[in-house]
Amino acid sequence: MIPRYTRPEMAEIWSPETRFGIWLEIETLAAEAMENLGIIPEGVTKAVRERGAFEVDRIDAIEREVKHDVIAFLTNVAEHVGEEARFLHKGMTSSDVLDTCLNVQMVRAADLLLGGLDRVLKALETRAREHKFTPTIGRSHGIHAEPTTFGVKLATFYAEFKRARARMELAREEIATCAISGAVGTFANIDPQIEAHVAAKLGLVIEPVSTQVIPRDRHAMYFATLGVIASSVERLATEVRHLQRTEVLEAEEFFSPGQKGSSAMPHKRNPVLTENLTGLARLVRSAVTPALENVALWHERDISHSSVERGIGPDATIHLDFALHRLAGVVENLVVYPENMMRTIDSMGGLHNSQRILLALVEHGVSREDSYTLVQRNAMRTWRGEGNLLDLLKTDPDVKAKLTDEELEALFDLEYHFKHVDTIFERVFGAA
Amino acid sequence: MIPRYTRPEMAEIWSPETRFGIWLEIETLAAEAMENLGIIPEGVTKAVRERGAFEVDRIDAIEREVKHDVIAFLTNVAEHVGEEARFLHKGMTSSDVLDTCLNVQMVRAADLLLGGLDRVLKALETRAREHKFTPTIGRSHGIHAEPTTFGVKLATFYAEFKRARARMELAREEIATCAISGAVGTFANIDPQIEAHVAAKLGLVIEPVSTQVIPRDRHAMYFATLGVIASSVERLATEVRHLQRTEVLEAEEFFSPGQKGSSAMPHKRNPVLTENLTGLARLVRSAVTPALENVALWHERDISHSSVERGIGPDATIHLDFALHRLAGVVENLVVYPENMMRTIDSMGGLHNSQRILLALVEHGVSREDSYTLVQRNAMRTWRGEGNLLDLLKTDPDVKAKLTDEELEALFDLEYHFKHVDTIFERVFGAA
Amino acid sequence: MIPRYTRPEMAEIWSPETRFGIWLEIETLAAEAMENLGIIPEGVTKAVRERGAFEVDRIDAIEREVKHDVIAFLTNVAEHVGEEARFLHKGMTSSDVLDTCLNVQMVRAADLLLGGLDRVLKALETRAREHKFTPTIGRSHGIHAEPTTFGVKLATFYAEFKRARARMELAREEIATCAISGAVGTFANIDPQIEAHVAAKLGLVIEPVSTQVIPRDRHAMYFATLGVIASSVERLATEVRHLQRTEVLEAEEFFSPGQKGSSAMPHKRNPVLTENLTGLARLVRSAVTPALENVALWHERDISHSSVERGIGPDATIHLDFALHRLAGVVENLVVYPENMMRTIDSMGGLHNSQRILLALVEHGVSREDSYTLVQRNAMRTWRGEGNLLDLLKTDPDVKAKLTDEELEALFDLEYHFKHVDTIFERVFGAA
Amino acid sequence: MIPRYTRPEMAEIWSPETRFGIWLEIETLAAEAMENLGIIPEGVTKAVRERGAFEVDRIDAIEREVKHDVIAFLTNVAEHVGEEARFLHKGMTSSDVLDTCLNVQMVRAADLLLGGLDRVLKALETRAREHKFTPTIGRSHGIHAEPTTFGVKLATFYAEFKRARARMELAREEIATCAISGAVGTFANIDPQIEAHVAAKLGLVIEPVSTQVIPRDRHAMYFATLGVIASSVERLATEVRHLQRTEVLEAEEFFSPGQKGSSAMPHKRNPVLTENLTGLARLVRSAVTPALENVALWHERDISHSSVERGIGPDATIHLDFALHRLAGVVENLVVYPENMMRTIDSMGGLHNSQRILLALVEHGVSREDSYTLVQRNAMRTWRGEGNLLDLLKTDPDVKAKLTDEELEALFDLEYHFKHVDTIFERVFGAA
Repeated sequence: MIPRYTRPEMAEIWSPETRFGIWLEIETLAAEAMENLGIIPEGVTKAVRERGAFEVDRIDAIEREVKHDVIAFLTNVAEHVGEEARFLHKGMTSSDVLDTCLNVQMVRAADLLLGGLDRVLKALETRAREHKFTPTIGRSHGIHAEPTTFGVKLATFYAEFKRARARMELAREEIATCAISGAVGTFANIDPQIEAHVAAKLGLVIEPVSTQVIPRDRHAMYFATLGVIASSVERLATEVRHLQRTEVLEAEEFFSPGQKGSSAMPHKRNPVLTENLTGLARLVRSAVTPALENVALWHERDISHSSVERGIGPDATIHLDFALHRLAGVVENLVVYPENMMRTIDSMGGLHNSQRILLALVEHGVSREDSYTLVQRNAMRTWRGEGNLLDLLKTDPDVKAKLTDEELEALFDLEYHFKHVDTIFERVFGAA
Repeated sequence: MIPRYTRPEMAEIWSPETRFGIWLEIETLAAEAMENLGIIPEGVTKAVRERGAFEVDRIDAIEREVKHDVIAFLTNVAEHVGEEARFLHKGMTSSDVLDTCLNVQMVRAADLLLGGLDRVLKALETRAREHKFTPTIGRSHGIHAEPTTFGVKLATFYAEFKRARARMELAREEIATCAISGAVGTFANIDPQIEAHVAAKLGLVIEPVSTQVIPRDRHAMYFATLGVIASSVERLATEVRHLQRTEVLEAEEFFSPGQKGSSAMPHKRNPVLTENLTGLARLVRSAVTPALENVALWHERDISHSSVERGIGPDATIHLDFALHRLAGVVENLVVYPENMMRTIDSMGGLHNSQRILLALVEHGVSREDSYTLVQRNAMRTWRGEGNLLDLLKTDPDVKAKLTDEELEALFDLEYHFKHVDTIFERVFGAA
Repeated sequence: MIPRYTRPEMAEIWSPETRFGIWLEIETLAAEAMENLGIIPEGVTKAVRERGAFEVDRIDAIEREVKHDVIAFLTNVAEHVGEEARFLHKGMTSSDVLDTCLNVQMVRAADLLLGGLDRVLKALETRAREHKFTPTIGRSHGIHAEPTTFGVKLATFYAEFKRARARMELAREEIATCAISGAVGTFANIDPQIEAHVAAKLGLVIEPVSTQVIPRDRHAMYFATLGVIASSVERLATEVRHLQRTEVLEAEEFFSPGQKGSSAMPHKRNPVLTENLTGLARLVRSAVTPALENVALWHERDISHSSVERGIGPDATIHLDFALHRLAGVVENLVVYPENMMRTIDSMGGLHNSQRILLALVEHGVSREDSYTLVQRNAMRTWRGEGNLLDLLKTDPDVKAKLTDEELEALFDLEYHFKHVDTIFERVFGAA
Repeated sequence: MIPRYTRPEMAEIWSPETRFGIWLEIETLAAEAMENLGIIPEGVTKAVRERGAFEVDRIDAIEREVKHDVIAFLTNVAEHVGEEARFLHKGMTSSDVLDTCLNVQMVRAADLLLGGLDRVLKALETRAREHKFTPTIGRSHGIHAEPTTFGVKLATFYAEFKRARARMELAREEIATCAISGAVGTFANIDPQIEAHVAAKLGLVIEPVSTQVIPRDRHAMYFATLGVIASSVERLATEVRHLQRTEVLEAEEFFSPGQKGSSAMPHKRNPVLTENLTGLARLVRSAVTPALENVALWHERDISHSSVERGIGPDATIHLDFALHRLAGVVENLVVYPENMMRTIDSMGGLHNSQRILLALVEHGVSREDSYTLVQRNAMRTWRGEGNLLDLLKTDPDVKAKLTDEELEALFDLEYHFKHVDTIFERVFGAA
């Protein structure tokens, strides 16, 4: 967790206060169920609800002594609750508390991430609609291909983040389980109804079968999903970085008026936010492999996963959360230069229409080979800087013999490329 | 692709014959749609269906010349079809064919993998039911904890592979799309109805918006899923390797009678299949990171993903497919030694029941501290090899004062631990 | 950085105080060189040495305003130094300070890691010499093979960590460079002699050619090395975990007398330190891929590496440092049970000598096939529990005809296996 | 191994013929040593040298039967050698042959990779010297910064690949070891002198201590090194891709005259080779993590590493080898457009000199604040397209009051930036 890439909402989920608070809630709910089942005396739950409390420092101090975090926590809680506290945790194993708590935290983190994705989606839709028909060159291999619109470009990202959202919901489902099943998952000393009660109250489903722990393939899937989403963040960040290059400058990250350092070199506005997002994507992705390595625990459990999760649990969710909001801000405030986009399209002198001319000639009865020769000889002149392709074609007698000026001009009509933009938008954003 | 870890069914999906066959199908279906729309003359589809053919060698030879695989393919097809072939591929871009084909291959691979998962699931269920009540020690940290049953152990794997199956279905959905949208995804030169037609015929859905390519976050999610499943393979393989250790020997990979090399050292039966699966899991997982790195293509596409996919596409699916079938075989034929499992449980002299005794003493009015002392002094004797815990307790006057021999024996009853096994099985396998 | 896996010595290297302190040192040394070259007035260095100071909070406050860390730092320093401060940083670019500082930190981290490796090596050598001739079974595939000694086992780890040390030294060299070369590395506004002076004073070598930044292949190699070392930590941790399994119990992590929780179940001593090390190894390794992805910066630099390094820089070094010291402690205090090792060797009834018997029979003129049959029939009886192999062979008339009791007993002599232990120790630890 | 990314020289190293050939050499050399030591009869080595042979198909057939590759190999060799063959492999374990062979292959692969690196280095040096003083804009964050030369740019890559070469040599050393130490590395049945003899003859050093296998930290370091080198390949490939973008076009991959597909769109020359290299870098890097996971084998060995190495051994070396030669070709034939580089420099109207003007004004007694205002107001005009900076400054009366036209022109002198290029070249390439 790097403070400058941390939003407090997400950091709070991973704070000791929150963690111990969830532990207390789990213990209290379990006690409630035991009380209902007559396993522990009446009144315990009430006592815990009324007087249950803890202090992080005190827990830490006790842990240094007993070297066991759950025992330290229970000891501290007992200091507040008194006598009734000894009925807490009956028949439970530490992992019942720890693993269910981790899942609660991961579910909450998922909810925040879904919020971040929603903000990104909203920003993308707004800007896509705004630039639905803003022409821009499409590029394959970094080379100009055919025109598209900036709105369509953004629509591809919207669709991608829509998928990201759906994946995040599935990831949330993966870890929204509760296990209170005892030392090796057999419920030897704890009734399954207790698990059911706690699960229901926490908005989780019961883990059908656990060992001592909740199976780590669930967590692996969750972190793998974060990695995929981070890669989508990287794709959008990379697009902005490309568009902001000095030679392209078709869009720019918003640069606040007070922002220092570049007034004497007005071109020196660096895409630092999206470069930063590129790095954050790498960081988030780095959680995937250790999460996969965490799956194959030995027998009913070993504890090797624990140190890994102390790292990647907070780090991957905090950094992705921060990245999503930073990304949303970039999109919301992106400075778009439609005139530069148009300039880019024009810069090739109309060469991107070569193939349309070729097809038109063929349709007017010229053989494929001859059409090719005709187009090529004019295209090469444009490429050498001798004029734009339309003008050259208009003066080429062999072309004139087949295509009128009006027909030629129509072949250079940009709108031709945008006739299905409505369809695409409908597919992506739904009916208008 | 390593031949010895390859099943022919999966290899075939990735063969040049299959790939070109899918290309031909895509081109034919697109032609069919164009013919229906009156874009190309009637009869083209019929001609292609009747005479369409290709030779891999010939395509390779042409590609060496023209350095373009789709053009080479179309040229070769035209040699068979004749005149009508020139209407094929009209308005399409190579990626329309390549990317849709890759998705068809990945869908087929997913179907084979689902088959492999089904075989694993079936084997696990059969063996779990067989050993539903076979007692075995549960281990946390590699240390004996409480008893469980071998059936419950297998049930945890069944539940995990059930999740793996659900994930694989989602991964299949992720890449079951078709894009025929032209050079930058605008349908400038190709009607969206053609895409719809090809998609429907191939059992795919249309890609709502593509650039030149089908977005690679889909593929990333697919490979990430393979990585998670491979990690579950590793968990089961690791379990078997542990059980087959000389000191444990509670289960063993089947060892065919003719299998060489160990008759003079009958204990030297190595768990080579599951060790191999552990390695294959690493190999499959290694596809995840490059797949994530493939997402952020530049602008409307760059072709950096292509070489990666030529590697990980076949490799990850082939190795996981092989691993699933090898794993299923291991489970189907696993030699289980219930008597050794019982011997293991007994080897601790009943120490795993210490906590039950402690609770019983507390319930019979002994203070927690005194109970602890009573249990501990006997437990330590057992640990030093002075007798099993039950016998020692029976002769300890302080214990005798509180618990009868019958009560003590009941506390050592194994069945106690298995009272919820039915519940667990119902949760995992459904009602009997 | 996870507090519980952090030693203060390493944390300090990555603290803001240390970082800004290094910045100040770099700026001061650069000023000194400039003063020597007559580029800035005499007395500046003296002033900075006397009054140079900073406050982390103040720098943070200024940075929030100007959004530039180096400017914030210089402003704060100027508040202390006064007038002369404006000559600091002349012709330098922020990366000159940032990148050289990072390398200083990484060099210091390397030195701490080398110290940790030395402690591990010392512990391994001490314990290896102690158990030079403690017999233990060698295991391949987890199956008993032939005897070795516990000292030889530890020697393999010693040799591995010796290699780790050599690699760490090379990694230190990789990043022990200094670059003060200006905005794009051309020294346009800064004399190369300044770089040479700062480098020499900091114990670094000059970076032969930099862009704006020190090339990131150096850092990649450094983090890759940490990943390899972490994997060696994992191998040793895994060995201990295996040895501590209930069924094996040939060695155990030291368990402090006051350590809670297992007195009633004396066998329940969990190898939590080495399990933790296994997880830490995964965490450290997770730095490798992002470090590799950091290499391909755009043109003369982009800043995507920065957020990555803010994470992996402290995290990977802190966790590996902690892991090395935890590992050293495990080895230093490892409780070794030679009698259990011997019990393990004996548990197979002498089967591990099968092949020696076979060879001896062949040498005594029995055909290979007959020898095999003789050995096999006795080995199978041992395997079935009908007696140890030596006793059975002594009573097998066909064997007796060829080998005397003395000869047979010699074939079961453990010392046979250890005749080259001296040689191995000499190779690994050098002449005694 | 993907055929189209494979050079036959490297593929050959990994062929079955080569592998079995190395096995035969190892067995023969071991026999030679045994013969010298009088362990096996005289004449065996001669017989094997004269008649030793094998057929891959035959070995495969035998392996299908006996399920053991080394036994299959020895059986086949015996079919050729006859009687004497039974003395081969005496006291050896399969891993002695397999692991030493793998190292021989990896050493040979390293030698080929060193050759590839040399070709890249040579190409970089040649082109760097050619363009030592070709001005080009340096870019940070993708934004124009200060001028540098194309030669200096290439020098940064030369220095990086020089480091790559040094790392590759170290990686070669890491795995240039030989182990012939028997079942658990104790030399129980094999004299250490045999290992020494084989090592010397194969140009390897002895492995100081092995278990059954050569320790995998060595291989991990090797593959980690390949990953770092692949990342350097990616950095150079990325640079070329950027330079070839339509908007930049300062350099281009060589495009052979016969190369199809773009004559009608002459700008459509795609940087497909460097895009491909970007993907290959991802593939090579994907070997690093499984190689790290291979280190922690269980006890004296488990065989999980084997399947991994069957994959990454050939794949990573073959793909990196191919990539290096492809990269060298790209550099050798790179089409450089110095005039476009100059056009880029000029495109900002001289804004990249803003800071030099600022400094000059300060040196001529203008206050820092006033200097800033003067520069800024002219820079903003240039940015708005109202003229290049030099012309505007010449007509600004406040500037004229301080700087003459000659002085101003001097401040726009490109050569200023290149005064230390000789120094840089000397550092990188050595004295001229």
